[in-house]
Amino acid sequence: MLKAVQILGWSSGLTIISQRLTKTRNSSSSSTISLKLSTFSSSPRRILSFIPTRMSSSQSGSDPLPKSQTFVSVQSSGDVRKIKFCQWCGGPTKHEIPDGEEKLRAICTHCGKIAYQNPKMVVGCLIVHEEKVLLCKRNIQPSHGLWTLPAGYLEVGESAAEGAMRETWEEAGATVEVISPFAQLDIPLIGQVKTYFTYVIFLARLKNLDFAPGPESIECRLFGLDEIPFDSLAFSSIYVTLNLYLEDLKKGKVKFHYDVVNGFTYGLFILRPGSSPSDIRAFTLDYHLQP
Amino acid sequence: MLKAVQILGWSSGLTIISQRLTKTRNSSSSSTISLKLSTFSSSPRRILSFIPTRMSSSQSGSDPLPKSQTFVSVQSSGDVRKIKFCQWCGGPTKHEIPDGEEKLRAICTHCGKIAYQNPKMVVGCLIVHEEKVLLCKRNIQPSHGLWTLPAGYLEVGESAAEGAMRETWEEAGATVEVISPFAQLDIPLIGQVKTYFTYVIFLARLKNLDFAPGPESIECRLFGLDEIPFDSLAFSSIYVTLNLYLEDLKKGKVKFHYDVVNGFTYGLFILRPGSSPSDIRAFTLDYHLQP
Repeated sequence: MLKAVQILGWSSGLTIISQRLTKTRNSSSSSTISLKLSTFSSSPRRILSFIPTRMSSSQSGSDPLPKSQTFVSVQSSGDVRKIKFCQWCGGPTKHEIPDGEEKLRAICTHCGKIAYQNPKMVVGCLIVHEEKVLLCKRNIQPSHGLWTLPAGYLEVGESAAEGAMRETWEEAGATVEVISPFAQLDIPLIGQVKTYFTYVIFLARLKNLDFAPGPESIECRLFGLDEIPFDSLAFSSIYVTLNLYLEDLKKGKVKFHYDVVNGFTYGLFILRPGSSPSDIRAFTLDYHLQP
Repeated sequence: MLKAVQILGWSSGLTIISQRLTKTRNSSSSSTISLKLSTFSSSPRRILSFIPTRMSSSQSGSDPLPKSQTFVSVQSSGDVRKIKFCQWCGGPTKHEIPDGEEKLRAICTHCGKIAYQNPKMVVGCLIVHEEKVLLCKRNIQPSHGLWTLPAGYLEVGESAAEGAMRETWEEAGATVEVISPFAQLDIPLIGQVKTYFTYVIFLARLKNLDFAPGPESIECRLFGLDEIPFDSLAFSSIYVTLNLYLEDLKKGKVKFHYDVVNGFTYGLFILRPGSSPSDIRAFTLDYHLQP
């Protein structure tokens, strides 16, 4: 079990992170995971953690809201104690560690079922066309008016590649061919309990030049690699992804990346660049791993 | 939206899959995703899809079962219509497509919250030590007595790398250092509704030679690369992962792999190799993509 994250060093554009691994079964032995360095050519910016949202017609209250009112529905917190009823039978839950497990779970006191919580996966495409990348200007909160890659929550009935293509179609009206996996970014969200988003990005290419903003986008545009609006990006995940790609191009080889992106979050809400409170060096890359 | 999966060709050790992508917004245009070929050097085997399980002290019934009885708790089916009550307030749900969305959701008729379902992620380690790999013989169903990589469900409070190390510790008593991402396998499970497991495997190395089976393992052993018990592997995911690794070694370069592993499933249950009904060529690799 990982017990602590310790920042060993910090400088502009360079972060060094060490994680101490402590055995829970045998307290006498411990080990330190080796360090990985990550440098970005551009200076750190006010880019914070990324929670995509799902649009919903209702949020809370004793009655569903009228259809004309559309709100952003924030995802559940991951706090197991907030699960008070069984989804299947409606019985009240108790919160215990089941036999053979190590984590607190919500267990139905009527039917005995356990409500497991699964991490959220976000899938998207980094679409490259003639040395340009396709970005979408967001028409929804958070980060309304800022630029992002087409990406969104993976649904249970689709593969990651299918989900990335669906999101690209929904947000950019673009039909793409997935070329290769490009990055997995694990992004922790610090609320009452810590939860992670797993963000899977594929490199993709346009099948044709027919693209147009969907309801969640104001505009979709191809940006030259030297025109990317780094000051107007919606989320740290997008900033990291685009920087990794530009760095790969400089090195002449596009590779797969695994990163833990530790960003700044404020409660359960996402802060867009320039929001307050924020820190200009608001994320660190831990575990920058490549094959 | 992906409308159909069509098997174009089939031969021993070689599968060719095409997926037809049909636009839902504009029915006049469609495109076909390019084909990828995948060959395995060894012959296909009776290896089927992989559902890991969580141990639980109770499964169903009007009262929780005694602690001494331990059952395997099958995960929820992903069928949104089975969500009949709100986890947070206990109110009855209705099943509708919310404004701005395209999928049927369970929406609470009291508090208006939407019960989103998230795909399940499994994380694990391919541990390499002096040209040997560490495998665990399963002490639990399914596939009791068969060999697997240490792997299990990712929890909401951990990164994929942390989860893979935790599972390795729990199942093999081994402290490992994660070296690099190795594979993402998306594995569909065909029940009443189709759901996917996302299976993320890291290459890892032992920090020391202290390893021992945890409660879910009978035995843990290092196997030479020519000694891997391919006839006694627990799941298709393990078969695929080990074959990809051996093929990479032959080519002299270990890379990251993204695959959709379409396996044979029987209802919600996993069939281990040799089970019936089964097919000796029981899985296909779609979207074999690499950076």
